[in-house]
Amino acid sequence: MSETKASQIVLAARPEGKPRLADFRLEETAIPTPGPGQVLLRVEYLSLDPYMRGRMEDRESYAPPISLGAVMPGEAVATVVSSRHPACSAGDIVSAHTGWRTHAALDGANLRKVDPAIAPVTTALGVLGMPGFTAYSGLHAIGKPAPGETVVVAAASGPVGSLVGQLAGIAGARAVGIAGGSEKCAYVKDELGFDVAVDHRSPEFAAKLAAVCPDGIDVYFENVGGAVWQAVLPLLNKFARVPVSGLIAQYNAIGPSKGVDHLPATMRAILSKSLTLRGFINYDFASEYYHAFLREVGAGISQWPHSVSRGLRRWAGKGAGGLHWNVGGSQLRQANRSSK
Amino acid sequence: MSETKASQIVLAARPEGKPRLADFRLEETAIPTPGPGQVLLRVEYLSLDPYMRGRMEDRESYAPPISLGAVMPGEAVATVVSSRHPACSAGDIVSAHTGWRTHAALDGANLRKVDPAIAPVTTALGVLGMPGFTAYSGLHAIGKPAPGETVVVAAASGPVGSLVGQLAGIAGARAVGIAGGSEKCAYVKDELGFDVAVDHRSPEFAAKLAAVCPDGIDVYFENVGGAVWQAVLPLLNKFARVPVSGLIAQYNAIGPSKGVDHLPATMRAILSKSLTLRGFINYDFASEYYHAFLREVGAGISQWPHSVSRGLRRWAGKGAGGLHWNVGGSQLRQANRSSK
Repeated sequence: MSETKASQIVLAARPEGKPRLADFRLEETAIPTPGPGQVLLRVEYLSLDPYMRGRMEDRESYAPPISLGAVMPGEAVATVVSSRHPACSAGDIVSAHTGWRTHAALDGANLRKVDPAIAPVTTALGVLGMPGFTAYSGLHAIGKPAPGETVVVAAASGPVGSLVGQLAGIAGARAVGIAGGSEKCAYVKDELGFDVAVDHRSPEFAAKLAAVCPDGIDVYFENVGGAVWQAVLPLLNKFARVPVSGLIAQYNAIGPSKGVDHLPATMRAILSKSLTLRGFINYDFASEYYHAFLREVGAGISQWPHSVSRGLRRWAGKGAGGLHWNVGGSQLRQANRSSK
Repeated sequence: MSETKASQIVLAARPEGKPRLADFRLEETAIPTPGPGQVLLRVEYLSLDPYMRGRMEDRESYAPPISLGAVMPGEAVATVVSSRHPACSAGDIVSAHTGWRTHAALDGANLRKVDPAIAPVTTALGVLGMPGFTAYSGLHAIGKPAPGETVVVAAASGPVGSLVGQLAGIAGARAVGIAGGSEKCAYVKDELGFDVAVDHRSPEFAAKLAAVCPDGIDVYFENVGGAVWQAVLPLLNKFARVPVSGLIAQYNAIGPSKGVDHLPATMRAILSKSLTLRGFINYDFASEYYHAFLREVGAGISQWPHSVSRGLRRWAGKGAGGLHWNVGGSQLRQANRSSK
């Protein structure tokens, strides 16, 4: 490697509403020198995930906010350039929380090795990484779909939703995917093998969703919020379970929204239909579900039946999943536009 | 018994907002004649419960709405006047779903006998009845308070809330009660033995609640909604549990409320704090918890330590608990004004 400079992107300003380029700043730095026990990493793929929007806000959440001027956080697949830790050698491929930068010197003990012989390395940021485990743990720990039940997931072509639907199908449930536009809906149904896909951009979205859920909804995997939740709410069955994994529709909201107060109707439905809403972060369930996740989903990538493995293979082949940033370039690019 | 006429109250109109006297109609009927297998009951005490407001609406809930002209539903403690069922004899005291009427002829197989030697018969409609089991099952099946945790309950002097707080104390948790006015707050703290009581009518209610919950809230037993929920929400700890048992603050609402949409903030809190909101009706948990409830709470009325049994005794001595209707008279009277 002949690089002499590293690059990083820091948070320059807290975004108001939708983030703009001016909220970030590209900085050149020296390539860091690993200390004792550290390894020098060169980032190959960086995952860009919806949770990052929340971290840009100066408010309490499940993680502290990013300081202004600090490197944006993020998980990457990286190559070990040099190692001062016995667990790693130059040339190893690992996943690590490097943040948005081209190079990082990190403790070698906290890295997860990625074996390119098992699956494309980008799966460590997608179906076999945080998004995959979010899907797996939320669906199994909270959703608990039973055979014959109806599972609905929004952002169904995204890295979380795509796996939720496929796992629901494996559990014997009926998988209904919500996605934006006919192309994504075709992908969800034909490639990922969902039973049906509904376009949330349709003016008749709520009526169409009701039509494809004639037996109501038993599990709604929530990663969107907003109008999709309003369409789902009246369809939820008694004792329905709602894993709340994300709320991307409201991440860019500025201040409280005005108009109709939707809270009383949601609370009334929770009461009258004995609903369970349960928020979670994937690591809430790590001790109980992580090994089963790696075993089942890892095996599925090469061994699941054709209709499922095609979807997973295709997904894996697309890269990290979700929005991702190509560190080699200089722009944020939307490799997969399905998260919303 | 020399009665020759029975009385009943029917729903005359669907209330808009707060129910008015004109929404009901008092009717005189003949005393019903029990058929084979039936018993004739004379109602002694009738429980008036918040859920009845929902049943007056013409909309889907956990039970079908009451038809116009139909007798208002309700559970009563009643005396058996005559019996054509082998399980009952004249003079027995039972609890039964008679509705709002002085006399009813019901199948003798579905009645629960009440033993006046164990506790005042009105406890069958209060602490040993539906309100008591609502408190017990919601707290234990959903709230699951651990020793040292903080449990908050609104309407703390009411038939459900009073037991929630006392059971929380028995579980080793800190019980914080919310009630309206200084008299009720004194009752909650001094008679029921809550650790602290907060007056929701205080202009500084939210700040006062925060001050008495220095370690946040781990379990919030929701039976009110509205402004109390808004005060509780920022205090909920990571992994807090919220059994949703009632929403009395919004039962009389007409149409959707305008102004700020409070749903996004609630959903964000569910996500970022990994909250569990779970609606329930007491019979959701009957098979798992009912016998334990009767055993523990029944024993507690005579055997619990003084600070607890005083509260339960006093409660039991006050009658059915919650709003209750004196069938012998002609007016709805508010024997216990603590439900809101």
